[in-house]
Amino acid sequence: MTAFSFDLQKTDGSARRGRVTTAHGTFETPTFMATATAATVKAMTVDAVKATGAELAICNTYHLMLRPSPERVAALGGLHKFMNWQDPIVTDSGGFQVMSLAGLRKLTEEGVTFQSHVDGSKHELTPERSMEIQHLLDSNITMALDECTPHPATHEVAAESMRRSMRWAKRCREAFKKREGYGLFGIVQGSTYEDLRAESVKALADIGFDGFGIGGLAVGEGQEEMFRVLDFTMPLVPSEKPRYLMGVGTPSDIVGSVMRGIDMFDCVMPTRAGRTGRGYTHRGQINIKNARHAADARPLDERCTCATCQSYSRAYLHHLFRCEEILGPMLLTQHNLHYYQMLMKDIRSTIEAGTMTDFAAKFTADQALGDVEAL
Amino acid sequence: MTAFSFDLQKTDGSARRGRVTTAHGTFETPTFMATATAATVKAMTVDAVKATGAELAICNTYHLMLRPSPERVAALGGLHKFMNWQDPIVTDSGGFQVMSLAGLRKLTEEGVTFQSHVDGSKHELTPERSMEIQHLLDSNITMALDECTPHPATHEVAAESMRRSMRWAKRCREAFKKREGYGLFGIVQGSTYEDLRAESVKALADIGFDGFGIGGLAVGEGQEEMFRVLDFTMPLVPSEKPRYLMGVGTPSDIVGSVMRGIDMFDCVMPTRAGRTGRGYTHRGQINIKNARHAADARPLDERCTCATCQSYSRAYLHHLFRCEEILGPMLLTQHNLHYYQMLMKDIRSTIEAGTMTDFAAKFTADQALGDVEAL
Repeated sequence: MTAFSFDLQKTDGSARRGRVTTAHGTFETPTFMATATAATVKAMTVDAVKATGAELAICNTYHLMLRPSPERVAALGGLHKFMNWQDPIVTDSGGFQVMSLAGLRKLTEEGVTFQSHVDGSKHELTPERSMEIQHLLDSNITMALDECTPHPATHEVAAESMRRSMRWAKRCREAFKKREGYGLFGIVQGSTYEDLRAESVKALADIGFDGFGIGGLAVGEGQEEMFRVLDFTMPLVPSEKPRYLMGVGTPSDIVGSVMRGIDMFDCVMPTRAGRTGRGYTHRGQINIKNARHAADARPLDERCTCATCQSYSRAYLHHLFRCEEILGPMLLTQHNLHYYQMLMKDIRSTIEAGTMTDFAAKFTADQALGDVEAL
Repeated sequence: MTAFSFDLQKTDGSARRGRVTTAHGTFETPTFMATATAATVKAMTVDAVKATGAELAICNTYHLMLRPSPERVAALGGLHKFMNWQDPIVTDSGGFQVMSLAGLRKLTEEGVTFQSHVDGSKHELTPERSMEIQHLLDSNITMALDECTPHPATHEVAAESMRRSMRWAKRCREAFKKREGYGLFGIVQGSTYEDLRAESVKALADIGFDGFGIGGLAVGEGQEEMFRVLDFTMPLVPSEKPRYLMGVGTPSDIVGSVMRGIDMFDCVMPTRAGRTGRGYTHRGQINIKNARHAADARPLDERCTCATCQSYSRAYLHHLFRCEEILGPMLLTQHNLHYYQMLMKDIRSTIEAGTMTDFAAKFTADQALGDVEAL
């Protein structure tokens, strides 16, 4: 078996180029995970996801604990076999979704009780149960159960919430069953307060984790504020471990966060946008449902090498969305995931070349140009 | 360029093994078309459709005349380019869908006027316009515009309807622009009446077509009655042309119709069933949404070689449908189309071996066994 490890290969300013090794293979960082909430990347086959360049998938503890249950997934051989994804898998702890999706939540020192948003059934999630579920799912990277502090929060509320998350982090560390090639990440909280973020980083470093999630961001504070928090938080985080900015974000968020030392990202944006007709291009986002694309023979992005752009016109994609054909979301999701993976690939080679500052300036300028009009 | 042609290679009783050549390549018969109503096989990429073994796609004149319009498809290079399907394409005439989907229909000797079911806009479809539309779409096999006589119909109604369809067939033949490698099929009508079917076949043979559609069946008359009509109709149809039983059918319909001399089939069943959780197996149909599949580690059909059965359990498919994940319809449609294509492949090799009667008996017995229970 292979030990879980992070190999930091190159830095460019605060940007980092690395590689994470797990029991199910390696992935290159900075990386963007394929979001597979309910053990499927929505509207995509596994082969199509792999073809975009994705090396890592993230599944959701909350969704899978409700359906089909972690015990069933374990009986069927674990998540890798269940969803036919042989590469590394991250699972989140379920805490965020309990707070955003479930009904009748009750948070205590012990954990959180809630009602399923699917059928109203009652469930309990504690640090120990979260570790057990993620173990049953056979996740390569387990996330500690935390409370994602709502934004905005007073210093007092943020401190109390963060400190409970740190006590839970310690219980997660104790409950986590160590296996070769599997890792556990703690999650930094503390809202937008520098002293609280510092206290949280120190608490997690003292407990000892295989990586650091940065939580409680991209919850409405805005990009500028998020970058400000990263600016004072990231220099405190131990450099020898991978850092994962949870739930982020736009292409611009990713470029800026890489420059502040983030190695791992996940976000529903490219898949959700793909299902609703929004496509990413090197000159910003377009809505394929707009009438101006109806007769446009060009691909979505003339620079793009994805299977969608190689074979289909904007006019065809427009037609699929107008007719509510499932192939529309399938093809556009494929393109969007490919766009994100190509961005990550460009970022990795840029860090290797040491030209991240120039890359970011060019990226921002291109995005600001807007879509090329049809002739 | 290649001439449109039919090569009848072998017969086994009334069953026929052949090959049709078109400007976009050949297809082996008996064949089952991939249904691509609005220029997409629902929930399937073109590569996935091809991987099932499909050689021929059928698109819908009615749907495409409303969205995106045949003129737009032509401006974008025709259907093959538009939908990225480089192989032969059949289009139906639009007549059937006008009668089943459109609002405020008015049928005259000239043609039919109707309101779009999408936006209520007014349209007219005549034999001449149907030929023009199918030409613009660049369909390899154009179907004559006819009226699908409703079932049941009195002899008088059926005769009047059939005779108008035959007058329309003549106008279609005259309006059809001949091109090398493109064919026009007439459609036999006459409801369940032997004299009318005979009159219709003679009328079409006199006009001269590249193949014969058998219309007005699978409209509620039941399999026994459909087979009875085929029993007296098919011996009259010229043997040197391909015969296409439109809109049929179940696996059992197909086996029985092949034994009565049919070469070509199309039906929405495998794709529609795939989207609603019903899967075909060699021991009949199952509903993957049923609770009995929830923990079943077996594939949908242990004999099946499709990508779905090679990689996924019934439990996973059940989970996808329970969670309303798009991958569920994608994987099950793939399996169902593969099932139909494997059936056609088996039928073709069976005719070559001259054992169609034995094959049909075994097929019927296997289907009657019902699903194998999990251990």
